[in-house]
Amino acid sequence: MQLAISDFNGAAEAIDAQFASEWEEVQEVLTDMPLHIKASDQAGIQGTPIFDAVGTNGSIHQELTDRGWRDHLPIPAEYQFLGKDVDFGKGDVILEVQFSNYPFLLNNLMRSELFYKAGVDLDGIGVQLLVIVTKGKMWPASQSTLYSEQAEHQISALAEVGVVELPIRLVGLIEQVPSTVQSVWTTYHAARYSRTVVEKELPACQIDAGARATSRVRLTRV
Amino acid sequence: MQLAISDFNGAAEAIDAQFASEWEEVQEVLTDMPLHIKASDQAGIQGTPIFDAVGTNGSIHQELTDRGWRDHLPIPAEYQFLGKDVDFGKGDVILEVQFSNYPFLLNNLMRSELFYKAGVDLDGIGVQLLVIVTKGKMWPASQSTLYSEQAEHQISALAEVGVVELPIRLVGLIEQVPSTVQSVWTTYHAARYSRTVVEKELPACQIDAGARATSRVRLTRV
Repeated sequence: MQLAISDFNGAAEAIDAQFASEWEEVQEVLTDMPLHIKASDQAGIQGTPIFDAVGTNGSIHQELTDRGWRDHLPIPAEYQFLGKDVDFGKGDVILEVQFSNYPFLLNNLMRSELFYKAGVDLDGIGVQLLVIVTKGKMWPASQSTLYSEQAEHQISALAEVGVVELPIRLVGLIEQVPSTVQSVWTTYHAARYSRTVVEKELPACQIDAGARATSRVRLTRV
Repeated sequence: MQLAISDFNGAAEAIDAQFASEWEEVQEVLTDMPLHIKASDQAGIQGTPIFDAVGTNGSIHQELTDRGWRDHLPIPAEYQFLGKDVDFGKGDVILEVQFSNYPFLLNNLMRSELFYKAGVDLDGIGVQLLVIVTKGKMWPASQSTLYSEQAEHQISALAEVGVVELPIRLVGLIEQVPSTVQSVWTTYHAARYSRTVVEKELPACQIDAGARATSRVRLTRV
């Protein structure tokens, strides 16, 4: 996929100076990743392809751990009010994949800022850079889920006034419009919430501009 | 009720120097307030008295607005990703009543910190002090709801390392154990979630130490 990148609090400089190899691995994993899609279960658009968060998460997990990234970094007991674990980490870089809704982004930001300022390490992984992976607004997706343009707006507001001070690189997963890309179409056991895979297919997927009102693209299996 | 107070980031000094009159009003409202209780709908303790968040909220709302506090302070459009409005405000003091669960406390903290650092005013109300009203852990209450000891722990962790820097006074609503206090017993139309009042009674309520395992008190209408 293509990446839309926004940096906050000197993230670009920190990456150049200290985290070039970690970033290169993340970039490789995300740019090599095909578009993951599944059938919508939403009334009115049932059966049409939408962004598949579960499939995308699974793919990122496989590829990052293959490159030596640790997963499910345990949060120390005294900070578990901020959650159980952090998605991924390597060196002094942590990475959160956030396809859920905006309160989870705020939680990710607040706990990362706490770990950064308190000098907490997560089972050996320091917190000097936070990479957040989100999807672009362009994708048809489950309702009310976070997209990168919204995340960019929110992190900007918090970083501008110093509520968050740690270096953050926000990545939005996007593609060119129009284009035809390699995709992974996954059929799950139940249309909604299920993570049980029934079938994986590898069709090409055509991406076209959608109705102007929605600003979402139209996806077609070809 | 009695108040358990915890101050962060110089809140006591800020109150002495600038917000003594606002705090006196809050203190008067909360100490004059009777204990609000209702019947539990939880299996196993159905019908027994528990802390009534809706009744407490209603009482605080009535008394604060009677003293010229503004309610539902609108959050400016560009920050509405942090919510629609702030509970109460007067002068440069905002007050949030938080009987819900911990993610809402984090949201209250993060938006207050943003308004403080960005110098945002909420329809004329500045943000120089945040008062958070919670209930003590002692009260039997709906499951997974926030209590002040938990809030104290969480705000401490965030304030110690400077993730939140604005002055905060945390208030826990408590009572002596054992004691007998004036209470308001409200019967709602539906046992759970309803805000429609069927009946309000004013019984005395006896507060006794409960089973040690729970650390919650036992309440009895007398």
